Amino acid sequence: MSLKKLISPESIAIVGVSDKPGFGRSVCLNALSSRDTGRLYFVNPKREELFGQKCYPSISELPEAVDCVVIATAAHTVAGLLEESGRLGAGAAIVFASGFAEEGSDEGDRLEQEVIETARKYGMKVQGPNCFGMMNNVDKINLWAGHTHWDPDDDAHGIAVIAQSGFVAAEIINTGFMNISYAISTGNGNIVSLEECMEYTVEDDNVSVVALYLEGVRDAARFTAALGRAAELRKPVVVMKAGRSEKGAISAASHTGSLAGSGKAYDSVFKKYGVIPAYNLEEFVCLSQTMSVLGGNFPESPNLFALSFSGGETTLTADLAEDFGLELPDISDAAKEEIQKYIPSFAAAKNPLDATTALFRDEEKTIGILRALQAEESIGAITIGTNVSQTEDATTAALCRAIAAAKETDAVSKPIFAIPSFEGSRHQGSRRILEDAGVPLMSSMATSFGCLKRITAFSGYDWKARTLKPCVGNGKGGMEAKALSEFDSKNELKKYGIPVPAQAIVRSAGELTEAAAGMKYPLALKINSDEILHKTDAGCVALNVKDADEAKTAYLQIIENAGKNAPGTRTDGVLVQEMAPAGVEIIIGASNDAQFGPMVLVGLGGVFVELFKDTALYPAPLNSGEALELLKSLKGYRLLTGFRGSKPCDIQALADTIVRIGDYAYGHRDEVKEMDLNPVFVYPEGEGVCAVDALIVKW
Amino acid sequence: MSLKKLISPESIAIVGVSDKPGFGRSVCLNALSSRDTGRLYFVNPKREELFGQKCYPSISELPEAVDCVVIATAAHTVAGLLEESGRLGAGAAIVFASGFAEEGSDEGDRLEQEVIETARKYGMKVQGPNCFGMMNNVDKINLWAGHTHWDPDDDAHGIAVIAQSGFVAAEIINTGFMNISYAISTGNGNIVSLEECMEYTVEDDNVSVVALYLEGVRDAARFTAALGRAAELRKPVVVMKAGRSEKGAISAASHTGSLAGSGKAYDSVFKKYGVIPAYNLEEFVCLSQTMSVLGGNFPESPNLFALSFSGGETTLTADLAEDFGLELPDISDAAKEEIQKYIPSFAAAKNPLDATTALFRDEEKTIGILRALQAEESIGAITIGTNVSQTEDATTAALCRAIAAAKETDAVSKPIFAIPSFEGSRHQGSRRILEDAGVPLMSSMATSFGCLKRITAFSGYDWKARTLKPCVGNGKGGMEAKALSEFDSKNELKKYGIPVPAQAIVRSAGELTEAAAGMKYPLALKINSDEILHKTDAGCVALNVKDADEAKTAYLQIIENAGKNAPGTRTDGVLVQEMAPAGVEIIIGASNDAQFGPMVLVGLGGVFVELFKDTALYPAPLNSGEALELLKSLKGYRLLTGFRGSKPCDIQALADTIVRIGDYAYGHRDEVKEMDLNPVFVYPEGEGVCAVDALIVKW
Repeated sequence: MSLKKLISPESIAIVGVSDKPGFGRSVCLNALSSRDTGRLYFVNPKREELFGQKCYPSISELPEAVDCVVIATAAHTVAGLLEESGRLGAGAAIVFASGFAEEGSDEGDRLEQEVIETARKYGMKVQGPNCFGMMNNVDKINLWAGHTHWDPDDDAHGIAVIAQSGFVAAEIINTGFMNISYAISTGNGNIVSLEECMEYTVEDDNVSVVALYLEGVRDAARFTAALGRAAELRKPVVVMKAGRSEKGAISAASHTGSLAGSGKAYDSVFKKYGVIPAYNLEEFVCLSQTMSVLGGNFPESPNLFALSFSGGETTLTADLAEDFGLELPDISDAAKEEIQKYIPSFAAAKNPLDATTALFRDEEKTIGILRALQAEESIGAITIGTNVSQTEDATTAALCRAIAAAKETDAVSKPIFAIPSFEGSRHQGSRRILEDAGVPLMSSMATSFGCLKRITAFSGYDWKARTLKPCVGNGKGGMEAKALSEFDSKNELKKYGIPVPAQAIVRSAGELTEAAAGMKYPLALKINSDEILHKTDAGCVALNVKDADEAKTAYLQIIENAGKNAPGTRTDGVLVQEMAPAGVEIIIGASNDAQFGPMVLVGLGGVFVELFKDTALYPAPLNSGEALELLKSLKGYRLLTGFRGSKPCDIQALADTIVRIGDYAYGHRDEVKEMDLNPVFVYPEGEGVCAVDALIVKW
Repeated sequence: MSLKKLISPESIAIVGVSDKPGFGRSVCLNALSSRDTGRLYFVNPKREELFGQKCYPSISELPEAVDCVVIATAAHTVAGLLEESGRLGAGAAIVFASGFAEEGSDEGDRLEQEVIETARKYGMKVQGPNCFGMMNNVDKINLWAGHTHWDPDDDAHGIAVIAQSGFVAAEIINTGFMNISYAISTGNGNIVSLEECMEYTVEDDNVSVVALYLEGVRDAARFTAALGRAAELRKPVVVMKAGRSEKGAISAASHTGSLAGSGKAYDSVFKKYGVIPAYNLEEFVCLSQTMSVLGGNFPESPNLFALSFSGGETTLTADLAEDFGLELPDISDAAKEEIQKYIPSFAAAKNPLDATTALFRDEEKTIGILRALQAEESIGAITIGTNVSQTEDATTAALCRAIAAAKETDAVSKPIFAIPSFEGSRHQGSRRILEDAGVPLMSSMATSFGCLKRITAFSGYDWKARTLKPCVGNGKGGMEAKALSEFDSKNELKKYGIPVPAQAIVRSAGELTEAAAGMKYPLALKINSDEILHKTDAGCVALNVKDADEAKTAYLQIIENAGKNAPGTRTDGVLVQEMAPAGVEIIIGASNDAQFGPMVLVGLGGVFVELFKDTALYPAPLNSGEALELLKSLKGYRLLTGFRGSKPCDIQALADTIVRIGDYAYGHRDEVKEMDLNPVFVYPEGEGVCAVDALIVKW
């Protein structure tokens, strides 16, 4: 059953209506401001009437079975009211009260369980408990339990806000400059989950942007499937992930895992699915609103042209563009010549452009400049320094009208971003002039340029080039896992086409001779034992063994040393293997994120990974293009492309290996806890790679 | 002569008063809103009266010789008016008109020169041309040429804003929430310079913070001297440096230089002088206002306690603290026990603290928590999530009053920072309640936590531990420079106590034998020639020479190869030197910044510097503590402290070497263009360092 009765109910009952400050009062007043209150009912046995609305003594005594029951009473009353609602056929409910599972108390858990069971019994879509309500700005239904910026006559909409914090949702709504379609505070989210809200809103035609304030995902498969669907529809999903600093406990154990903290896991999922991440609330609001106003008019190239009307602003723009890695390319001579017609002779036609205050109120000249830029193929979008003050201001209004006219007269079809110097309340009139023309009025310069980097990344995102198989968390909690031996780990990799050095376990000098006959010297010999941890210290490792005689001597010495230096430990022969020639050292790891399942990690080996944390993470499985992108994201990538005169490495073979590791980790996600190939030697082009050491840990 | 007559004039004439929109009208209206207009005179030969004020036909016909003449007329009239003012004894003038040097035209340059000469002739302090005016909020004199947020009854002040962009100055003034003492738009700044304004305001008792919007420094010595004076006085200087992305042309030539771009040079000067850098306008405003409200109550430790009233806010706070490297340490059991008394039983007393909305209006409990924190030695300051809406709001006001009461009743002497979720206009009443109690109401969470990192750094800054000799730019422009030979470079370093390998130039086999007798093998031999650039390719280098025989052979071979492979090039014998044993590779460089003069650069050698740009820059001279700080700022610093089982390096010897390089570069700043010691080998503790290769380039 869909969320329709929750989000677009045709009839509503509010239980616990009140005129005392609190949820009961707020939701009544908000509900009364809805467009259609003909089938809105108040329930309060102690009141005849409230705010001019008749009060019924109970849900059962309402004139009809309503779609949605809003419960504004205390925690202990909720289950009973849900039972009554369910029996009468209500399809949905919203529960504000706290005092449930979020308290972590036995009583809270018990009450939560009751609510869950009652909802399940009647198939009711229950939002909350411990939530702030729902606002539907499309059908103009306001069931929010606090102050909202709500104008029933304002039809601007587009954004579905789904928030796991009522506080944050309330803050966002009250900024007053977001074109919201639906705002949903999910509360404890055990019945109607964040994921279900995503599924519903992604498919809704009244939603052009899904904006998630996310603390944690419950069902990664559903979550990523919804993200995949949004990607197919090219519907932007903006996510503010809170709690990034919390470490994923499950991945803390191994070296690879410890680099793959959960914040990084989220970022990698977002990268795969083309999600637009926001790293603070300003960005969250700015990105959501900007994408909503653009309405699909995304930049065709990431390169920007920056137009301002003062020198200071132009300088700051150049700095910020560089800070955020945004290109402001030179423009053609033709464009320069054309632009020069509209600016004072002492101003120079270049990018970024200081058009000077002379143009501040000159609509014709401003349009002239914008038209000249439209012809520039290298330019994907135009930014315009637009200082919209809080009060009506003729200069600002003139500028906004000029920009709007440029769009509306089709002088410019490229997206335009209007950017003020400071964040702050914006004059509604000026904002509307711009937005009606499809021009977003962004946040401050600093916030906006950071956002633009992500907007251009979204524009360039191609879901068809990605392997969008749903992520599946491992759900194994603290289940015990065991490492395969180096020999078994490498044999397993070999089966999956990953090059490893020739190797054998030998249990006698005769077996050694036989095994070595098929190998290329030099060899390495190592005791095969999971109980001797410091093999070198125990004299149980021999490297650079040059021939059969040395091999035999080394073998006997290792057996002797094991008995002498590590008496009573379990050993199982000696691992003998070819020593691979040195190459560029790479590490490839796979962790099995509790939340998102198998993740591949790559990094440059040695000090690079340890000192500079130069690693990159990506959800498995992945294709060759994704593997290459991952490698290119490393700061030390140049070590692979022929650095300081060395030959370019076999990057394709490396990418293929990463793909295989991803396939293996995803295919075996129920058994493989983590993998660590460290190092993988990468050889010059055409010469492949070799996983010199490897470890697979299985449940 | 001081700037007193410019900034605090007792009598003022405005020339070019007008009632048409523009500078002339704006400055009249602003001036009339000044506290004392008894000695304010309007000059306009065409008007009898304007805005109720009598108009005089000329400056000469004014009843008195005024302190400051404000000139609101066009560029070509300015020099004449200055001449007239100067003749009459005016001490200062403000010139708004543009059309001078900033246009880059011959006519503009000529007019600028006229103005400069006239000012010089009469010793007049002329602000501008091409400026936006001056606002003195201490004496309540408003000579600004545009809209200002100006309340003659509001005595809050503290900040001196000195801005090299009129636009930015205007934007800042109009945010309306800065406690400004003086705002000065310097314009072209050729007469009254930014540096002079700094000197004046740093010493002014009505200024607690100097806030610079800086595009470029004209006189580094004066600039840094003023910064040094502010440091001594513990008066915060907040600087927004625009144009960071512009590369310093002078330092682009050499490798070391190319890493020492001018943005980095500014940052290093700021670090040395304890300047608080702002990287965008929000930070600029937030840092200035926050430091001004603190009034010297700086955090005694960089550790914070974060108090919020919702779970979402608490989560976001934890993320931001980690993002910006701010510690939220655990608190003592005693403090936990005390705090638990004031929060609901299901809430946990920890840092960061979600005190829940239950406390939102509870003054007593809020104060109780704050008092408990006062006793915690580990906590330097307290942040409080404070969402101050634009409109009056009982909850916010209650919270603000509780915070103020905690300060005013001396329950807490530690600094408290009130932090809203979003930037935005703030309710003036709530802001004043907090500010009057010395509690800054900061910007959004994201901006504020970034600022707090810098505020705690300022608190920990100790000017006495720094070598605050003024920076002196080299002023050598494109003057030709020449590299000393490797031999001469290393000899020069040796004289200054920097260890280099034993070396000699030999011009015969006999000289070789003699020289080598005093050296330790292995040796390296290399042709001594500044014309043979690729010495190895030409067969003119021999490494790992083990004994006297090998040395002789190598010598003869090099001479022969030079003649054969590089005929006709100038050579001067062979450089023979000991081969230093390998150590951890460091580079030490010195560049001579056009703006700030000698700068020392250190970095880890090899790929670290090339791939990761892991270098740090600092103005010379520097002491051992500063050198250590510089080393510790490297990401790869751990390579020096005993990484992966290797011995800790002789960091003290390395620091001493850096100090010597700094002294050398500063002492020879008129001749040394750049130095490059690459690599310097650093040996285990007690074993020192060795500059294996070095290059000094001199003018």
